[in-house]
Amino acid sequence: KECDGEQNKSVERKQEDNETRLNKVYMDYNATTPVAPEVIQSVTETMCGAWGNPSSSYPAGRKAKEIIHEARENLAQMVGGRPQDIIFTSGGTEANNLVIHTALRHFREIQVLGQDRAGEDHKRTAGAIPHFVTSNVEHDSVRLPLEHLVKEHMAEATFVPVSKVSGQVEVDDIIAAIRTTTCLVSIMLANNETGIIMPISVLSQQIQILNQNRMASGLPRILLHTDAAQMIGKGRVDVQDLGVDYLTIVGHKFYAPRIGALYVRGPGVTTPLHPMLFGGGQERNFRPGTENTPMIAGLGKAAELVNKNCEDYEARMREVRDYLEERLEASFGKQRLYLNSQFAGAKRLCNTCNISVSGTGLQGRMVLSCCKTLLASVGAACHSENGDQPSSILLSCGIPYEVAQNALRLSVGRDTTKEDVDVVVEDLKQAVAQLEHNS
Amino acid sequence: KECDGEQNKSVERKQEDNETRLNKVYMDYNATTPVAPEVIQSVTETMCGAWGNPSSSYPAGRKAKEIIHEARENLAQMVGGRPQDIIFTSGGTEANNLVIHTALRHFREIQVLGQDRAGEDHKRTAGAIPHFVTSNVEHDSVRLPLEHLVKEHMAEATFVPVSKVSGQVEVDDIIAAIRTTTCLVSIMLANNETGIIMPISVLSQQIQILNQNRMASGLPRILLHTDAAQMIGKGRVDVQDLGVDYLTIVGHKFYAPRIGALYVRGPGVTTPLHPMLFGGGQERNFRPGTENTPMIAGLGKAAELVNKNCEDYEARMREVRDYLEERLEASFGKQRLYLNSQFAGAKRLCNTCNISVSGTGLQGRMVLSCCKTLLASVGAACHSENGDQPSSILLSCGIPYEVAQNALRLSVGRDTTKEDVDVVVEDLKQAVAQLEHNS
Ligand SMILES: Cc1ncc(COP(=O)(O)O)c(C=O)c1O
Ligand SMILES: Cc1ncc(COP(=O)(O)O)c(C=O)c1O
Repeated sequence: KECDGEQNKSVERKQEDNETRLNKVYMDYNATTPVAPEVIQSVTETMCGAWGNPSSSYPAGRKAKEIIHEARENLAQMVGGRPQDIIFTSGGTEANNLVIHTALRHFREIQVLGQDRAGEDHKRTAGAIPHFVTSNVEHDSVRLPLEHLVKEHMAEATFVPVSKVSGQVEVDDIIAAIRTTTCLVSIMLANNETGIIMPISVLSQQIQILNQNRMASGLPRILLHTDAAQMIGKGRVDVQDLGVDYLTIVGHKFYAPRIGALYVRGPGVTTPLHPMLFGGGQERNFRPGTENTPMIAGLGKAAELVNKNCEDYEARMREVRDYLEERLEASFGKQRLYLNSQFAGAKRLCNTCNISVSGTGLQGRMVLSCCKTLLASVGAACHSENGDQPSSILLSCGIPYEVAQNALRLSVGRDTTKEDVDVVVEDLKQAVAQLEHNS
Repeated sequence: KECDGEQNKSVERKQEDNETRLNKVYMDYNATTPVAPEVIQSVTETMCGAWGNPSSSYPAGRKAKEIIHEARENLAQMVGGRPQDIIFTSGGTEANNLVIHTALRHFREIQVLGQDRAGEDHKRTAGAIPHFVTSNVEHDSVRLPLEHLVKEHMAEATFVPVSKVSGQVEVDDIIAAIRTTTCLVSIMLANNETGIIMPISVLSQQIQILNQNRMASGLPRILLHTDAAQMIGKGRVDVQDLGVDYLTIVGHKFYAPRIGALYVRGPGVTTPLHPMLFGGGQERNFRPGTENTPMIAGLGKAAELVNKNCEDYEARMREVRDYLEERLEASFGKQRLYLNSQFAGAKRLCNTCNISVSGTGLQGRMVLSCCKTLLASVGAACHSENGDQPSSILLSCGIPYEVAQNALRLSVGRDTTKEDVDVVVEDLKQAVAQLEHNS
């Protein structure tokens, strides 16, 4: 049923491998980005020249330590925080899990402390298990740790559905989900499949008001986390504006290497942070393990690029993405083309486009398999084994089943051109024509 | 009191930085190694050419997936396991913590299952907390997670003291420490400060016998872990000979990048493995997070080098290390020079030498600060902030306090030459002479 027969697949794969990036147009920048040349250089130089153990006191160690410090400054600047608020992690998954782990432990600690006090409200949380509030369109690295805790009877969780009108999670819905025992609200800054930007600033203002009342009556403060994996390098990210306690940074979504960081507002002082790992004391004991100096240097360099050029990147990507949607609409017609990520009243990532061409036999995976140049996906890369199931994210956003089945996520990058767009649109047209001809 | 006055320090540091690796002889390979040129090349090439998301189904993703598979094969071969037994982690600290986390959870699971059964022995563990057995010379990434669990009343732990005669932990002492509730024995393969090699094979045989009896009476099986951080690339490591369930692999100790891996004998099938992180399903859900393809490729390349050349590396390092000890003894005299890592009847890493020159005012840190070419340490890098406290590892091994205070850890690498040794010995002689002159 797919364009290439099984028997030819392995030969074709070899051919394709040779062709990679030659005749191909990559439009899956939300899955991962290439590493920027400046970043590659920084990683390589650091591997060669600053391989010393950052804890060693001789020059080779001190040099590594300085490089790490510089990277920390660049990351802090990128999100509007202070260097001491940045904790390097192995990636976004670890950062997200660390926040959830922290909130759980913090709740327990508060409970133990509270046993000595007599407050009426406090009694309401004594012996209870903590409650988490999140949305129903979060990345698996937020959803699954929460589901795990629920399964283990260690926590309760409310997965607030996003609005089918705006694609956003509504602040009122989140506030309504909050309970006496709520310890953490975790809402992504921008969704990886639709690009929809969530109203975090408004949310944080409301939570701050709630917290003032809660603190007065001895209830645990609600901590606020946002996973900014998809936003960094595509739009302004400022922890002061956002008003969050934690923010997740994922290198490989902004041309940096495969590590990440967690922003924490005054870790261990203003905001709790409980390590998941114990060891040699690195990252002020919050995240021990000999520092990955080269990758940290690369992450810092990528942050530096964002600090310098973010507005530029954003404007360019938006222009190309808008051109892509325009061309697609012109080619397939307004009737046939669904723009799954355009919601009334919601802001959207500058680079993300989610479309469906209506028609039977035009499932996203089919269309992609008949494309000769386009490299894209039907949703999050980690769900690539999901077969022909439509994306649960799109269904949650109210996209009808038949439309969601045909969906393609096209995400452009810093260097995607209008010429690339023209090539991709032609490619999609021939793929659709071929599938219609075959059926 | 130190050779360089405070006022000149920053100037000297800058000078030193410029001199790094020019006039210096690095003898701190147990703290970290440089990255092998072949490994740097592999990391860089992968960053450039295989940056795709390994979960993506188009060629760029498949290529990344194949690179990861190849690395997994090289690592498996290096330790004598199967590719499916290798789980990539962010480093040794994570690998060690993951094993401890797993044993804790496994014990609880067994307890829950056991509630349905009636065995007498099983009742003895019902409601109990798990017990861990380890040595008193383990790395902080084993010691501290255990101390944390003890503090939290979630586990009990016995830190079996090493013998002051052999520097080894004695198998009989470990076996004697085992209780009905023991879930894990974790003993390092080779110590990072003394280089002493622990009798893991003999230990595993004894534990296997114990386990046969325990299983028969419904008691939880004792899991066996060894942290092989310091052994890999310096001597043969074979999980079949060792008979362990888990083995920790740390890249930056064998010329690989700053990531690691955990060997697990049949993860989830023969041997339990409970993830600490939840997310996108990578590493068969045991360790999710988008794979760090470049660093994994580099780790694989470093394993390939070990597979090809390990005997060679070992022979060369042993020769140079033995020459170093010989020359030191000849220079300072058998009376004054303590060889802290030579224990009767114990095997030792080929590259590690731990010495003290006796005399007042010759504390290890002092001596190093007066050296002009030698870069070395007084113990584990992560304890470099310990001031003039002697190493607790050496004290545990029975080294007298005054001797331990003066200790230097000198660890050689693959490219250390006898000429380097001559330079270092002269340097140490002048440093000691200078300190003696000043006092
Ligand atoms: C929104 C979001 N959060 C978190 C992650 C997790 O990042 P990683 O897989 O690199 O740990 C991703 C990307 O995969 C993402 O899109
Ligand atoms: C014996 C031992 N185990 C574990 C580690 C931990 O490795 P890392 O700090 O790279 O996580 C080290 C090195 O620091 C070590 O020497």
